[in-house]
Amino acid sequence: MSNQEVTYEGWGAFGADSVKGNFKWHKYEPKTFCEDDVEIKIQYCGVCGSDVHTASSGWGDLEASGMYPQVVGHEIVGEVIRVGSKVKNLKVGDIAGVGAQCDSCQACQWCDAGREQYCAGGMTGTYGGKFSRQEEAKGQKSYGGYANFWRGPSRFTVAIPEGLDPAVAAPMMCGGATLFSPLTQYGAGTTAKDVGIVGIGGLGHFGVLFAKALGANVTAITHSDRKMDDIKALGADKVIVTGDDAKAACKDHARSLDLIVCTSNDPKLPLAAFINLIRPGGTFVLVGAAEADSIPKVSAFNFITTNVHFTGSAIGSPTTTIPDMLKFAAEKGVKPWIKKYDMKDVNEAIPAFERGEPRYRFVLVNPHHGGQL
Amino acid sequence: MSNQEVTYEGWGAFGADSVKGNFKWHKYEPKTFCEDDVEIKIQYCGVCGSDVHTASSGWGDLEASGMYPQVVGHEIVGEVIRVGSKVKNLKVGDIAGVGAQCDSCQACQWCDAGREQYCAGGMTGTYGGKFSRQEEAKGQKSYGGYANFWRGPSRFTVAIPEGLDPAVAAPMMCGGATLFSPLTQYGAGTTAKDVGIVGIGGLGHFGVLFAKALGANVTAITHSDRKMDDIKALGADKVIVTGDDAKAACKDHARSLDLIVCTSNDPKLPLAAFINLIRPGGTFVLVGAAEADSIPKVSAFNFITTNVHFTGSAIGSPTTTIPDMLKFAAEKGVKPWIKKYDMKDVNEAIPAFERGEPRYRFVLVNPHHGGQL
Repeated sequence: MSNQEVTYEGWGAFGADSVKGNFKWHKYEPKTFCEDDVEIKIQYCGVCGSDVHTASSGWGDLEASGMYPQVVGHEIVGEVIRVGSKVKNLKVGDIAGVGAQCDSCQACQWCDAGREQYCAGGMTGTYGGKFSRQEEAKGQKSYGGYANFWRGPSRFTVAIPEGLDPAVAAPMMCGGATLFSPLTQYGAGTTAKDVGIVGIGGLGHFGVLFAKALGANVTAITHSDRKMDDIKALGADKVIVTGDDAKAACKDHARSLDLIVCTSNDPKLPLAAFINLIRPGGTFVLVGAAEADSIPKVSAFNFITTNVHFTGSAIGSPTTTIPDMLKFAAEKGVKPWIKKYDMKDVNEAIPAFERGEPRYRFVLVNPHHGGQL
Repeated sequence: MSNQEVTYEGWGAFGADSVKGNFKWHKYEPKTFCEDDVEIKIQYCGVCGSDVHTASSGWGDLEASGMYPQVVGHEIVGEVIRVGSKVKNLKVGDIAGVGAQCDSCQACQWCDAGREQYCAGGMTGTYGGKFSRQEEAKGQKSYGGYANFWRGPSRFTVAIPEGLDPAVAAPMMCGGATLFSPLTQYGAGTTAKDVGIVGIGGLGHFGVLFAKALGANVTAITHSDRKMDDIKALGADKVIVTGDDAKAACKDHARSLDLIVCTSNDPKLPLAAFINLIRPGGTFVLVGAAEADSIPKVSAFNFITTNVHFTGSAIGSPTTTIPDMLKFAAEKGVKPWIKKYDMKDVNEAIPAFERGEPRYRFVLVNPHHGGQL
């Protein structure tokens, strides 16, 4: 166990235009290392839509809140290089990951139940947040994974199991867990035999892969037919192309699904048409949120006459969902489709991400830390 | 078993102004009596908000659809005077009731599962509907309980158990079942210990009574304090008075409830404030629908950050919920607060209902058919 301090450097977002190819490599001061912390030499970091929403101030003006510069990235995998004296789940040399949340109060009923993402008061995002639980780190900013190192509370760091490529594990830490969590919560493949995934992008492709591996019949629901070949290759059993008239496109499929997980963040989402795809008693789960995030207009009768449930789901728990997901992915050979970029090329990767190029997840790689390009 | 035809007479709504004291007593032709039908000599009929919404064309222009005259009323209890040869659940002389639904396809998976209110294609309302399943009655209109007699499919008629006053059983057939169904579906008193009821009117008062009898801690959520004494007498443990600032009123009660059943049909319902009252993973169930029935504006983040479920629930099943509810009410001595009107005074009762006078449910009585005033 080494206690030597390493120098933190990473790609900083200094303003909303960072996402247009203007991230700047800079040194910064990480949180104080605490006795329940783990420090990771970053090998891989997935690129998540949240990174762009945050860095560009789409989810809140970071200029006004004094939260620039940001180091975004919350799909982090690397080698453990330091553990505090209270850490039990990892040791130096392990390969471990951290997702979008890096701390919680660790004391409320939701934390106790392995639902840390719904913690009553101590949620700390892996970037753009402030630590509050640990006395020594109170008020310090959290920094993410477009960087050389990361440190934070061990409860939120998870060992990557044997047999799972750490490069594909990285985008599972947030994107994968965001889909695996509602799919398993609502019984995909068991009580929910017929599962729909709305939006086949980074999140949605995880939805198709995991729902299929869980044994469900999978319907991909997509706006256009341009990804049709990919969708079939991912394993979808059926595709609904909504085009410009979702109501008409969905009409012949009424009450054909038990569960829909919706990754679209379109503020004009044809929600009523999608609700009608679901069998009475079924569930529609939103995992994407538009920057202007009101739920689209929908009629109360849509719900009263069907008993369909509308809900949302946030990421995945590091003590329940994420370990289960990684084990499941290793066992079933679930393989997300990734494209690797050397982390030094972040100012190419993010504009390409913004242009909608990922098929289906970008992963930044630190080759000098053992990441494989 | 008598097969003699009786003459049907009832209070007809001939136009939207019927609810202003203009119901007219008239003769009409009921559906053809079929071998799985039951005929009831009406003793009691509860007054439900749906009666007024329908008779006044608030839920659809009955003039345009050719559905005037209407005989509304779907909380019917009386004596069975005739049963078809295929009827197994009732015999002549029994006291039986029918609620808001009087037929379904009786063949789909939802009917099979005792969820007839979500039937895939054959839902017939007790009034304002048309029969479709029975060949002999196909296309005939359904007429409700502001009348001397009622007839319809036996699957939807339920025996009133010993020990339950038929007068209080009447408003349970729709209003009671509408609350008992979601309360039991979502575990009030068991998995949902803390239950909120929004809106303390006819439906809401059933909510407080049943939730309390089921063993829940009950929070009544009401717009003003004018019903405070009633609410306490009904058994609520806590009251939240929202006034004009629901957000402020609810703030100190965040995450205090497992389940809310909302009987309000206010199009300006402060939904976001109510969602925040619910613990992560809990459920908000809408059972009221405004005439302009869009769901109030609410943020996707309200759901994503809490995993709260928004759903709706319609009435109750005649094969599962209603029999269970009647048995439960008889055993626990659940007593709705009713005010009786002689059915001949319907043109006094409905305007009083429209003025918001019920504390909390009106019941029309046919004394010449054995109803007790």
